[in-house]
Amino acid sequence: MFRTKNCGELRLNHKGEEVTLAGWVQRVRNIGHLVFIDLRDRYGITQLSFDQNSNKELCESATKLGREYVIQVKGNVRERSAKNANIPTGEIEIDVHNFVILNESETPPFTIENNTDGSEELRLKYRYLDIRRPHLKDTLITRAKMIKAMREYLDEQGFIEIETPNLIKSTPEGARDFLVPSRLQHGSFYALPQSPQILKQLLMVAGMDRYYQVVKCYRDEDFRGDRQPEFTQLDCEMSFVEQEDIFQNFEGMTKHVFKQAKGIELADFPRITFADAMKYYGSDKPDLRFDCKIVELNAVLPKTDFAVFNNAIENGGLVAGINAKKCANYTRKQLDEITEFVKATHRGLGGIVNIRFAEDGTVKSSIDKFFNEEQLREIGQQFNAEKGDLILIAADKISKVRKSLGDLRLDLAKKENWFDKDAWSVLWVIDFPLFEKDEETGDIIFVHHPFCSPHPEDLQYFDSDPTRVRAQTYDLVMNGNEILSGSIRIHQKDLQDRVFAKLGLTPEEVDAKFGFMLNAFRYGAPPHGGCAFGLDRWVMLMTGGETIRDAMAFPKASSGKDLMMDAPAVVDVKQLVELGIKTI
Amino acid sequence: MFRTKNCGELRLNHKGEEVTLAGWVQRVRNIGHLVFIDLRDRYGITQLSFDQNSNKELCESATKLGREYVIQVKGNVRERSAKNANIPTGEIEIDVHNFVILNESETPPFTIENNTDGSEELRLKYRYLDIRRPHLKDTLITRAKMIKAMREYLDEQGFIEIETPNLIKSTPEGARDFLVPSRLQHGSFYALPQSPQILKQLLMVAGMDRYYQVVKCYRDEDFRGDRQPEFTQLDCEMSFVEQEDIFQNFEGMTKHVFKQAKGIELADFPRITFADAMKYYGSDKPDLRFDCKIVELNAVLPKTDFAVFNNAIENGGLVAGINAKKCANYTRKQLDEITEFVKATHRGLGGIVNIRFAEDGTVKSSIDKFFNEEQLREIGQQFNAEKGDLILIAADKISKVRKSLGDLRLDLAKKENWFDKDAWSVLWVIDFPLFEKDEETGDIIFVHHPFCSPHPEDLQYFDSDPTRVRAQTYDLVMNGNEILSGSIRIHQKDLQDRVFAKLGLTPEEVDAKFGFMLNAFRYGAPPHGGCAFGLDRWVMLMTGGETIRDAMAFPKASSGKDLMMDAPAVVDVKQLVELGIKTI
Repeated sequence: MFRTKNCGELRLNHKGEEVTLAGWVQRVRNIGHLVFIDLRDRYGITQLSFDQNSNKELCESATKLGREYVIQVKGNVRERSAKNANIPTGEIEIDVHNFVILNESETPPFTIENNTDGSEELRLKYRYLDIRRPHLKDTLITRAKMIKAMREYLDEQGFIEIETPNLIKSTPEGARDFLVPSRLQHGSFYALPQSPQILKQLLMVAGMDRYYQVVKCYRDEDFRGDRQPEFTQLDCEMSFVEQEDIFQNFEGMTKHVFKQAKGIELADFPRITFADAMKYYGSDKPDLRFDCKIVELNAVLPKTDFAVFNNAIENGGLVAGINAKKCANYTRKQLDEITEFVKATHRGLGGIVNIRFAEDGTVKSSIDKFFNEEQLREIGQQFNAEKGDLILIAADKISKVRKSLGDLRLDLAKKENWFDKDAWSVLWVIDFPLFEKDEETGDIIFVHHPFCSPHPEDLQYFDSDPTRVRAQTYDLVMNGNEILSGSIRIHQKDLQDRVFAKLGLTPEEVDAKFGFMLNAFRYGAPPHGGCAFGLDRWVMLMTGGETIRDAMAFPKASSGKDLMMDAPAVVDVKQLVELGIKTI
Repeated sequence: MFRTKNCGELRLNHKGEEVTLAGWVQRVRNIGHLVFIDLRDRYGITQLSFDQNSNKELCESATKLGREYVIQVKGNVRERSAKNANIPTGEIEIDVHNFVILNESETPPFTIENNTDGSEELRLKYRYLDIRRPHLKDTLITRAKMIKAMREYLDEQGFIEIETPNLIKSTPEGARDFLVPSRLQHGSFYALPQSPQILKQLLMVAGMDRYYQVVKCYRDEDFRGDRQPEFTQLDCEMSFVEQEDIFQNFEGMTKHVFKQAKGIELADFPRITFADAMKYYGSDKPDLRFDCKIVELNAVLPKTDFAVFNNAIENGGLVAGINAKKCANYTRKQLDEITEFVKATHRGLGGIVNIRFAEDGTVKSSIDKFFNEEQLREIGQQFNAEKGDLILIAADKISKVRKSLGDLRLDLAKKENWFDKDAWSVLWVIDFPLFEKDEETGDIIFVHHPFCSPHPEDLQYFDSDPTRVRAQTYDLVMNGNEILSGSIRIHQKDLQDRVFAKLGLTPEEVDAKFGFMLNAFRYGAPPHGGCAFGLDRWVMLMTGGETIRDAMAFPKASSGKDLMMDAPAVVDVKQLVELGIKTI
């Protein structure tokens, strides 16, 4: 070893010890006849001290060290005169006897500090320098700690980690596959798995009983939002279980991870049906760190001439609102911003009604012309409105109203700091519908994936009213982000065939895509179910990241490019010829 | 849960308990008025008992259950009258009150037993049934246990598991890359990593200090021998270390894995140089479960007219042999087989000399014409030949002699049972050459990979006699199989540039292939080194498998095909158009 101690472990009780350290020069300070160097490694920072009076030559070579030089130093641990309470090694320093330069460094393209001056693009290109920044380094350590805690828990519960292959058959599950041309069988392709869904179900057919895997998954989607072409799942499956078993097991595991990685004790997770989540929070991943429920008004509105409300109700739509606590004093500009927010294309409202319950006890509204004060106060009561509150009401198609109010409540919560930054909202959303209607084509499509088991009591609607059938499907939602999705699976070939047929797949298509799976179901498939965690997002949430890129060692840029390696790249034509393909 | 207990946990102390079990029907036996069913799950087998006298109807439905039906049973644990000492649950049985069929099964295409009647091809096609066989199931469990033990040890030593990307740049490391066409950048391709070699070195540049990863690697090679297009490595790297630190750490880990997974305490691992391994065992992965060293005779041969020996020595070749203990009584046919063995194309000897030290004290040889008895006995002494021993001597180019005798010693050891099947030979082979000469082209090529650091004391030969330069490279060899390969890496840009130049790469090629890595070396790369374990092979060795397919859940057949999923397969032309490629 090039060191006897690392840069994070020396304390006052090591005083007098001779040690050898190795690491990177974080900074060099020249103070009169003294030179101080902060030496950094993964474990921390230790101050090195050089004195011109005791060793002029050594001291002068030390001043010549540049940022990020790698050096090895020998010296004695001594107590600092000026202690630094901000770092664990802040009570000591090394009285350096000699040092060796192990490697030089050019000046890095950005500062190696949490508050760096480098753009994200530059930092992705020099990711090996970016990872030297404490925050990113600590994120990768926390990620490893979290995964370790997951494995600990699952191993303890009798789960077995099994690796499934990555060169599989292209079996579209909803997203686009990455393809890998076969050299030995020209014209044929492997696909990279979007998830090990089918393979883990086959492991249940194989009798492995409890499986998990921390596994890379691949989806060739466009880079809208926070997506990566490859991402990591904690993938799990259990046999002979019902939903409740899954809830117990993975709620337990999630709590264990919080405890191990963050020292946080989570309370039991609430459960909310998909129907209620949509009704009260306008979202299937509600953030419950704050309240602000959506209140539906169709049944309680007084009769007036206000066409917007009347039309919505007559057309089977919804009038509903939220109470923006303490926002009655919003300016015209702020109210206009809210209107613009709900009018954005993907929300699509025509506008929004406001009722302001001012601190002075007066009530003002954008619909004063149609509603008298008493009526407005009655509406306010539905929201438990108090002095200072702002009620915001939307009227349109149900889906638009919910989406807009759901988004608005999140937006206001952030702006108004309605929740503690250290708070956690972790809950189960259950009873998703099995099918939904594609709004454009009118086709029946699946909500989660085609292997989810319907609720037995809803099977009666399978043919007559398929979108009414609830699935035994569940998500785990953390601070408004879905971090787990799962279901009890279909294990009977007949039922699986019925679902595929309902989705409009012909027997030939089913056979080509899922034949091997249905074939497996002929040989004693046990009842089973499971889930998959989106690991990158969970790590991101637990490490204060803004995108999942912040939770990965070497992410792709938003264009799908690896800026460090410069991939994807053009390859030798010879390679393509060997694969039996050419570019067009 | 569909069960209160599993099929492996009930013992006599559960007598009288009412339990619910679920599992697969292994077999149904009908004995007079009694019906016995072996119910199987991952955890074991439990006997179910039905009595016609107490419940005729139930008993008759039980007789109708087919092999591999999935059932759930309720009943009471009771002591068996005829105990079975071969299984842990053999003292009890379940007096069944009722059962439910959870799923039916068609008759499986082969028997679900260790001694199955299914061919490997059939079993690969129905891998989900193959995994139900106890041996394969236990192999997967042992695999998980081994990996768990690796992680335990490495976590304890301060290693951090970090995931590296799988969609990277094509940077040929020796084998052929699998390519992944980019949809967003037509004409460009990602490659699947042959190993995370460069990325883990960048993690050292990034200061992560100690890294590991259980990771899939991909090589698009032909399916000679025991290869898989995707395989798993335990990949490791450490900073600020010398070879000795790597030996200590990974020897410790290997012992821990043996102890945890098999209860075996391994002794300290011997170390042998590459030069000695070749000299004494004719192989860089010697199996030391038995002795049988190669003995070189050039210096000690008496002068005779035997042209084969004389020519070999004059041409700079080698005369050497091995002592096949207790084989003096080999028949003419057996001796002919040995001759055929060494004459095989890939060994290429012209023949082999034998000297037989018979049990009756006489000496006979295929070179009686040229050597008198005294001379033969003198040669015998070099081998410590005793009565009953057979000395086999080859003379040819050094490489052919070593290869042939090395292979022969292994072949004889297996045939003659020279070693205990439960014995383990685990050793380090060190000091591999940095370069070798390509026998066909005469080019200088690397032995391990181009990132291995030369021994500092051999740098003097770098230009004058490059193949004399030893690298700080090491393999771990287990029962004659390489299961780990590693090296101290080059961390200085200048030296890395020199190695690339020596390998005949132009600066432009270096820049295109490894530019980002060399660029990283400008910014303070620490001294570092590491290794990678071939996990599949290690698991195979520890579970008594014959090929690495036996150590994987879903391997490819030798043609690179997944027989279960039928991959690779033809895809929609639409998919190819989106990727900007077409087949030719």
